[in-house]
Amino acid sequence: MELWYTEKQTPNVGITCKISKTLHDEQTKFQHMAVIDTEQFGRMLVLDGMVMTTIKDEFVYHEMISHVALNTHPNPENVLVIGGGDGGAIREVTKHPKVKKATLVEIDARVVDVSKELLPEIAVALKGNPKVEVLIDDGIAHIKNKEKVYDVILIDSTEPIGPAEGLFSLEFYRQIYKALKEDGIMVAQTESPFFNKDLISRVYKDISSIFPLTKLYLANIPTYPSGLWSFTMGSKRWDPEQIEESKLPHLDTNYYCPEIHRAIFKLPGFVKNLLK
Amino acid sequence: MELWYTEKQTPNVGITCKISKTLHDEQTKFQHMAVIDTEQFGRMLVLDGMVMTTIKDEFVYHEMISHVALNTHPNPENVLVIGGGDGGAIREVTKHPKVKKATLVEIDARVVDVSKELLPEIAVALKGNPKVEVLIDDGIAHIKNKEKVYDVILIDSTEPIGPAEGLFSLEFYRQIYKALKEDGIMVAQTESPFFNKDLISRVYKDISSIFPLTKLYLANIPTYPSGLWSFTMGSKRWDPEQIEESKLPHLDTNYYCPEIHRAIFKLPGFVKNLLK
Repeated sequence: MELWYTEKQTPNVGITCKISKTLHDEQTKFQHMAVIDTEQFGRMLVLDGMVMTTIKDEFVYHEMISHVALNTHPNPENVLVIGGGDGGAIREVTKHPKVKKATLVEIDARVVDVSKELLPEIAVALKGNPKVEVLIDDGIAHIKNKEKVYDVILIDSTEPIGPAEGLFSLEFYRQIYKALKEDGIMVAQTESPFFNKDLISRVYKDISSIFPLTKLYLANIPTYPSGLWSFTMGSKRWDPEQIEESKLPHLDTNYYCPEIHRAIFKLPGFVKNLLK
Repeated sequence: MELWYTEKQTPNVGITCKISKTLHDEQTKFQHMAVIDTEQFGRMLVLDGMVMTTIKDEFVYHEMISHVALNTHPNPENVLVIGGGDGGAIREVTKHPKVKKATLVEIDARVVDVSKELLPEIAVALKGNPKVEVLIDDGIAHIKNKEKVYDVILIDSTEPIGPAEGLFSLEFYRQIYKALKEDGIMVAQTESPFFNKDLISRVYKDISSIFPLTKLYLANIPTYPSGLWSFTMGSKRWDPEQIEESKLPHLDTNYYCPEIHRAIFKLPGFVKNLLK
């Protein structure tokens, strides 16, 4: 008997993966969570019926949400990750020698627990790394009264429906701005340029209305809708496109590398048009 | 009743699209051919069970197989497209004012006929464009005795199984080299860096063994396996990365634009590693 997991990525298109085993299936306080083992991508974390990450392609998302900002900021000592309970972004953050403290704020404790158990390669930094603090809390509540605390904030959210809806709001980006130090940088995952055009335009406009510098960049993630994913950066001072390639560190990464640091901001025509 | 078309892109992963209508279904002399109308991507051409092109995302593939070489060559007067019976690549070729003659060599006359009828937006250049010549022939036979004829040759093939297998061979690339003028450029579609690693490595090595300059670039195509697609360029003289952005023409395109002409050659780490 062949078992296939199919995710409707929009009402009209989906990805379907042959699975060898369902490893976990649970309704948490916040969402439905499953871990399935797929033949193509290895173990896969699924929240509310949407692929969050897989063993085989997680490197793209986690490297790309982290290293672009961390290599743009000259001294990213204090970093906050909102969401991202699987630990992949935090693992990448801890690769930077200048990072002294990395805080993860995840609303759903079960995502952290199950990732530690079933996705240990991804969650490795959540277990006993002295630089890492894991808080189970609402990201919005966490930053509410913070002022000039963080150098870099990464918004590693689920889709803008369900628990993460507030993480895509203008008010939230204002709080993020306040919580960042005077030369801080934020990066948010902002969905697919093929399927989420309105969202990308709106978020870009919102972040531009708050930060002096707003830029969008792209990465290729096979298990995400359309395979093309966007990240939006708001920066108070540092421009990622002004970074000298020769000064960038060669980290232990499989997707991010110095050569692409500036190239990822060169956008195909139809994506550029979303930002006008 | 909901109808869904599912393509197994590998034995373990697929794309599934809701369809409103099957417009055409035929076994030609060479392959199975269908045109279906999908809710997400509009009309879709399917050959031997693989998505070839769709109305909504065809612009990416057709612009990217064509304009990079055509804007790298200073005077692309005589252009050959091998395969590509839907006419999309030829349509893009005819956008270049310097192109005097564009020849399409497609092995399967039925692909040309059905595209003209059911995909007229894509096949537009196949009908009465005085610069365009359409030949129904085997691409390998067509170039066999050609010497220094073409400025640019685009290999717009199907997958390397079935009728297109010979279009991925070292011997074929040698013939292409011979058929190109002394400063000619070839571009071949070379599949997904996530799913076709061995093919990409092998083709890159083969083309490098013949052409003085070999470079790989990437584009994002939602309906192709993994959503990330590669193109391999062999060039006798001109380097696409030495082209000045400010001198590139602003063509009527939705993906290709001067800003990305050089950026697309900056490769993620895992893709760069395939070319070592």
